[in-house]
Amino acid sequence: MIKKLLIANRGEIAVRIIRACKEMDIETVAVYSEADQEALHVQLADEAYCIGPNASKDSYLNTLNVVGVAKLTGCDAIHPGYGFLAENADFAELCRVCNIIFVGPSPDAISKMGTKDIARETMKQAGVPIVPGSRGIIEDIEDAIDLANEMGYPVIIKATAGGGGKGIRVARTEDELTKGIKITRQEAETAFGDPGVYLEKYIEDFRHVEIQVLADQFGNVIHLGERDCSIQRRLQKLLEETPSPAIDHETREKMGQAAVQAAKAVEYTGAGTIEFIYDRGSQEFYFMEMNTRIQVEHPVTEMVTGIDLIKEQIRVASGEQLLLKQEDVEFRGWSIECRINAENPEKNFMPSAGRIEMYLAPGGPGVRVDSGVYPGYTIPPYYDSMVAKVISYGKTRDEAIAKMKRALGEFVIEGIKTTIPFHLNLLENETFVNGDFNTKFLEIHDVMGQK
Amino acid sequence: MIKKLLIANRGEIAVRIIRACKEMDIETVAVYSEADQEALHVQLADEAYCIGPNASKDSYLNTLNVVGVAKLTGCDAIHPGYGFLAENADFAELCRVCNIIFVGPSPDAISKMGTKDIARETMKQAGVPIVPGSRGIIEDIEDAIDLANEMGYPVIIKATAGGGGKGIRVARTEDELTKGIKITRQEAETAFGDPGVYLEKYIEDFRHVEIQVLADQFGNVIHLGERDCSIQRRLQKLLEETPSPAIDHETREKMGQAAVQAAKAVEYTGAGTIEFIYDRGSQEFYFMEMNTRIQVEHPVTEMVTGIDLIKEQIRVASGEQLLLKQEDVEFRGWSIECRINAENPEKNFMPSAGRIEMYLAPGGPGVRVDSGVYPGYTIPPYYDSMVAKVISYGKTRDEAIAKMKRALGEFVIEGIKTTIPFHLNLLENETFVNGDFNTKFLEIHDVMGQK
Repeated sequence: MIKKLLIANRGEIAVRIIRACKEMDIETVAVYSEADQEALHVQLADEAYCIGPNASKDSYLNTLNVVGVAKLTGCDAIHPGYGFLAENADFAELCRVCNIIFVGPSPDAISKMGTKDIARETMKQAGVPIVPGSRGIIEDIEDAIDLANEMGYPVIIKATAGGGGKGIRVARTEDELTKGIKITRQEAETAFGDPGVYLEKYIEDFRHVEIQVLADQFGNVIHLGERDCSIQRRLQKLLEETPSPAIDHETREKMGQAAVQAAKAVEYTGAGTIEFIYDRGSQEFYFMEMNTRIQVEHPVTEMVTGIDLIKEQIRVASGEQLLLKQEDVEFRGWSIECRINAENPEKNFMPSAGRIEMYLAPGGPGVRVDSGVYPGYTIPPYYDSMVAKVISYGKTRDEAIAKMKRALGEFVIEGIKTTIPFHLNLLENETFVNGDFNTKFLEIHDVMGQK
Repeated sequence: MIKKLLIANRGEIAVRIIRACKEMDIETVAVYSEADQEALHVQLADEAYCIGPNASKDSYLNTLNVVGVAKLTGCDAIHPGYGFLAENADFAELCRVCNIIFVGPSPDAISKMGTKDIARETMKQAGVPIVPGSRGIIEDIEDAIDLANEMGYPVIIKATAGGGGKGIRVARTEDELTKGIKITRQEAETAFGDPGVYLEKYIEDFRHVEIQVLADQFGNVIHLGERDCSIQRRLQKLLEETPSPAIDHETREKMGQAAVQAAKAVEYTGAGTIEFIYDRGSQEFYFMEMNTRIQVEHPVTEMVTGIDLIKEQIRVASGEQLLLKQEDVEFRGWSIECRINAENPEKNFMPSAGRIEMYLAPGGPGVRVDSGVYPGYTIPPYYDSMVAKVISYGKTRDEAIAKMKRALGEFVIEGIKTTIPFHLNLLENETFVNGDFNTKFLEIHDVMGQK
């Protein structure tokens, strides 16, 4: 079993990992940027070392400094959290070379899932449903037109090297398709040095439903059900829940099996998430991408399964077998997570870093708070804006919503603006409460403007 | 269903009840003493009214003011919490007369269980095991000597009108018995105006194990398992857990059935607790007393059963039937509660009221905090010293202990002394960890002095 672990992250996820380690009697080493000297993770870890200046690229992304601290402090493992180095195959490889356990999958699995067209092809071969589209790169525009006619419009043109919303374009007519391919190729050439584009059917009315998987080094893979993350603003998740109000038991089972196949196809180990597009029209689901790391929204799965995902990551990375078989996994109740960001929802979610003058997190039954802040803490402007996650648990969705409203209603954060008022409005929205919506919910509903 | 509820209490239990009401869409009215103007329950309730000066007898025990506020604000119910008016049969009767629902049992049930010798006799008739002893009051000393010889020494002499540790005396020899009866009679005559005493076998090596019951107005009674409260200091519980490490499945079942019989015998309604003496020598259990109200330690039962006891109290008081049958109650995992008091454990638990300069409650998975304080809050010296309850939940006792250590380790309360260091030491104590101890644990173990 891992004895001493370096947490290559900050904020709530660093705190979350330290908590798991303390409960497992594992020593912890925190690293931090100059801006994070006063951060909670620095205070909670057994040891803490500054690894560079404010900018992430000089500190949290400085692989040599991170590995250097791990070696010098005698750590046998590094947990990357999410973001930063979590899906960096080179970093995972560097850890391997330095004889440090990387708490995550192999560099190879990270690579395969990190490259869009390779992931798509790997999934197709593994029998995981993918969105209908071109086989590899589009060589000839006429072929693209034929394919689009066959699939039906709208279609989406994607640069193979694209990402983060860049190199992507929707076409609703043949004319838009012809022009779109040309423009996207040019853009991709300029932005990524690779003009390759491919075509997919564009599914407009869908839910974001993802499956949590857990795999050990002995080929055992289980899934822990789904999370519905359809409440998004500019592809940023704001509220997640499990189970999904949109899918039935049969879909859940099929999706779970597909996720297990996907993980097996890349010999995945640890905790990972297969994201699916669930087409509300056809009620079919398609592979979107795999996140080869722990996710922000992992707690809702923990609430309904009783499984501690961070501890399982650490156990599996230590070389232990999964204790649970698929048939042992039980799902109970309903859980919702609201991400509380230091943003002003009244002013287009403008970031609102600053000093937290007053802070009192909600408590009581069925409410969990994962946070990296405290009263008097000043949020640095250099990193992501999330200050806390509130997770509610109830027997039913209604109860989980009622608990979340109660919890957010008593959450005191003064000195900065937060997304709490946004969530309180969202939880009152009739369409949200009914559960009948898609990923465009926040484009359609003016949550902050509702009476 | 109750629509508007007055909470006749303060501190964490008032907050706890307000939380349940918010989740049930019930309006809340807080009452407070002059000293409690800034209290959290006052801030969280929909309305709040001052009912008198600092002293409890002038405010929280002022029945006419409490009922007056309830009537004037249109409340249809009063929840008494624990302590204060919770076991006051006259108050329950006053509520009834004023057409206000008292969230608790009938005045008759409160009375019967509140009087020692009547409760003992009622339990005996109901077939609930009671500690062997005299049938009613001792008339003749020779009879007492014969009975003591029959039961074996030590025995305990108790004044029927006694309570709170007064009018009670242990006798280990015939001589001590003869003298003890005389002295106790005199004391009882002086203190309570009633010289009646009775005799019981004195059980020295016992665990305090209690059963939570829940009963509706239709005669349905279920039990929700036990709580072990053997860690006590001067009869004050400090740490509670469920299940009990001391009893086996068979005892648990028998004790549960006895508790249901006890509740039925007084036509009990709502949530109540039957406290038992579990004799470690004979492995027999005996009725100690019934608490006809919610208890401080109720959260551990909520954690392992998933049942919200406050909501059930309110539902039952509204006239609804119990939703669960005994066979539907499932027990999962292990839960521990530590009471965090504003006391200095290094100085004989001397009270330490004052201003909380810094406050950050623990969070993360498997940790619940019920508290009535916040950063900057000044604890008034007039009431009980409990500032927070930390409740941990794990699959096993070891996990629940590990979680509690982690949670207490990160709990920041500055400005006052608290019992956190005491609990951290206790959780490291080998005998505590083994679970092999009785109610004298804290008399035997110098927890604060341990290395």
